Amino acid sequence: MNWGEMLSRRARVEVDGELATILAGPPPGTLGMTGGFPNPATFATELLVEIAQRLVRDEPGIALQYTASEGIPSVREYLLERVEATQGRRPERAELGVTSGGMECIDLISRTLLDPGDAVVVEAPTYLGAIMAFARYQAELTGIGMDEHGMDVDQLEERLESGFKPKLVYVIPEYQNPSGRTLSLERRHALVDTCRRHGVLIFEDVAYRELSFGGDSLPTLWSIGPDVVLQAGTFSKVFCPGVRLGWAAGPAELVAQLAVAKQNTDQCAGALGQRMVEEYGRAGHFERALPSTRSLYATHWAALSKALDEHMPHGCAWSEPTGGMFTLLRMPESLDAIALRPAATEAGVAYVPGRPFYVTDDGANEMRLSFSALDEAQLAEAAKRLAGVIEAAVDFAGSRSS
Amino acid sequence: MNWGEMLSRRARVEVDGELATILAGPPPGTLGMTGGFPNPATFATELLVEIAQRLVRDEPGIALQYTASEGIPSVREYLLERVEATQGRRPERAELGVTSGGMECIDLISRTLLDPGDAVVVEAPTYLGAIMAFARYQAELTGIGMDEHGMDVDQLEERLESGFKPKLVYVIPEYQNPSGRTLSLERRHALVDTCRRHGVLIFEDVAYRELSFGGDSLPTLWSIGPDVVLQAGTFSKVFCPGVRLGWAAGPAELVAQLAVAKQNTDQCAGALGQRMVEEYGRAGHFERALPSTRSLYATHWAALSKALDEHMPHGCAWSEPTGGMFTLLRMPESLDAIALRPAATEAGVAYVPGRPFYVTDDGANEMRLSFSALDEAQLAEAAKRLAGVIEAAVDFAGSRSS
Repeated sequence: MNWGEMLSRRARVEVDGELATILAGPPPGTLGMTGGFPNPATFATELLVEIAQRLVRDEPGIALQYTASEGIPSVREYLLERVEATQGRRPERAELGVTSGGMECIDLISRTLLDPGDAVVVEAPTYLGAIMAFARYQAELTGIGMDEHGMDVDQLEERLESGFKPKLVYVIPEYQNPSGRTLSLERRHALVDTCRRHGVLIFEDVAYRELSFGGDSLPTLWSIGPDVVLQAGTFSKVFCPGVRLGWAAGPAELVAQLAVAKQNTDQCAGALGQRMVEEYGRAGHFERALPSTRSLYATHWAALSKALDEHMPHGCAWSEPTGGMFTLLRMPESLDAIALRPAATEAGVAYVPGRPFYVTDDGANEMRLSFSALDEAQLAEAAKRLAGVIEAAVDFAGSRSS
Repeated sequence: MNWGEMLSRRARVEVDGELATILAGPPPGTLGMTGGFPNPATFATELLVEIAQRLVRDEPGIALQYTASEGIPSVREYLLERVEATQGRRPERAELGVTSGGMECIDLISRTLLDPGDAVVVEAPTYLGAIMAFARYQAELTGIGMDEHGMDVDQLEERLESGFKPKLVYVIPEYQNPSGRTLSLERRHALVDTCRRHGVLIFEDVAYRELSFGGDSLPTLWSIGPDVVLQAGTFSKVFCPGVRLGWAAGPAELVAQLAVAKQNTDQCAGALGQRMVEEYGRAGHFERALPSTRSLYATHWAALSKALDEHMPHGCAWSEPTGGMFTLLRMPESLDAIALRPAATEAGVAYVPGRPFYVTDDGANEMRLSFSALDEAQLAEAAKRLAGVIEAAVDFAGSRSS
């Protein structure tokens, strides 16, 4: 049988293989600046040992059992409190659901809203996993440009004014993936206003929000416009990815649909992970642990930033994140990050090419550098190796064109 | 905003609310014979405490981190061994993937193969979660009748011979949900033969296979026809549902597509759950624990069976499972299990009505009784209460028609 001939139209949509490459980890022997993986040093191992054993021992009937698709009641209650504490606004009970992580929420909302041909707006660039997910639902993707203050909301507004009617606008407001940029407060209000006026849903991904280097953060889009924003949150970056847990907050009508959609995927997020996050959070550990997580990434960025300044050849530029795990590096126009990869692997350094983060052919000369996994010395060495690879390519391009 | 107006066609497909009702648990104060939930007494609490704490302490970088979408390599290796040990055939590496449970595999295969309007064959009756999932992909569902030997394969073959061309045939060969029936060996071979001849994929759900009361089991469809069968397995029934873990075994081309689809849903099954199952399994605990799990359910069924014999009024009949968690009870034609539910709740007993397990209007006078959760005394009492409810309804129907 040739099963390939039987694939659905959705499965025939060509998607970029980069996400699989990222999840598989960097090539052996390289210093990897690839994944948006949290640094395992931020995992609260000793606490989780204690919490996991207590839950399994004391309440196997809850922590090891199926749960309702919208989540365990006590976990939902805790998440209401936590959203209120971190965002200054408490969702109604019906405005919050438990998910198996932020990516799953992208799938659930796509499933709920998107028909083939529907328009979806994304930042250009944006998270490649989101592009893949929307593309697989056969949505038509439109990228809106960014500058150092995040998405160009004026550009979006012009498009909406001219009659463009997307089903949703996907935004990562903080330390954006892959650009590292943060949407300014003024633009947050402008975005909510324009989307509200045009009846367009904002789909806000707050994956990195709690990882500001300084501990400060801007109001979430959801807290500004709970009537027009659906927020996807995840515990992958501030707790651990190994339990697959996140939340959705937004209009009750949509949150209810997400739970229905979830009945037909994994039915429920794993109960053990749900209760682990609740126990950890209720004991105040997020507040206690986040400062050192933030300072770890801040220190990493300082090391990488310094090394980039020191080693990168003329003609390269990069974003200046104020939190999170990423910077986006732009090389001279003549260079292609995908073409450079074999040389980089050879030199012992790995990155993610920029092009898969765009819905157009842009980004060929860009690359995303993650500074979460490597330590300061490794980041300095990685930047140096990468600079060497780029420099050699610049020289080669120069000699070729002369 | 009226977000309800923006739903996708897929989300507008009316699905039965019964699955949500099941996941939410039986009404308070009732003896619940509702969910296909494993009995928490079968959870290996003490072992899991030890395994979870060891994994979190010794390998947070694996057990708490993201994994490749197809699963952690060592876990995949273990699953190859386990499939070989339990099914007598070892999949190739490319023929096996890790899932977040059996239901998620139904979603992944639907996503991979089904376009709106595609035909899907199911047993009549079949698992209502599968019906919902296929319906949400806008598939056209056809039910094939069953008798005590499982699906009527001759009937399917006739349909296929007459030009009917479904994308897949979904089968639960053992202790079927909801009927409790097992597909005979002869029909297994006939099913594989006819589907192979007609180029139709068999989607085999082995959720209950290891729960035979006697410990014996028939060859899986996948082991008979690995070229034409995709098998979904789950650890929810023999380990615990709280970690959301299962496997897919089948043609390499399809298994690869499932991993691609998974990148855009939850990205990967939770690493902690993956490694817990591997550690538990490699230490030989499945073999040690399964006999007592089987004997628990066998004892439960014996108690329920005895009570049904004793209390059920004339005109009721039920299936005789040889494993698993379910029997399907048929009441006299005049009765409706959905209409009877308030009286049953009032009497302190809960079941799942039969109709949602059919793709037609059949099954109104049927109900699924799960004997996993209640103990022997409770099952006896539940059957007695249920019999009283049915008897009163029979009497009422009789007096009405006379």
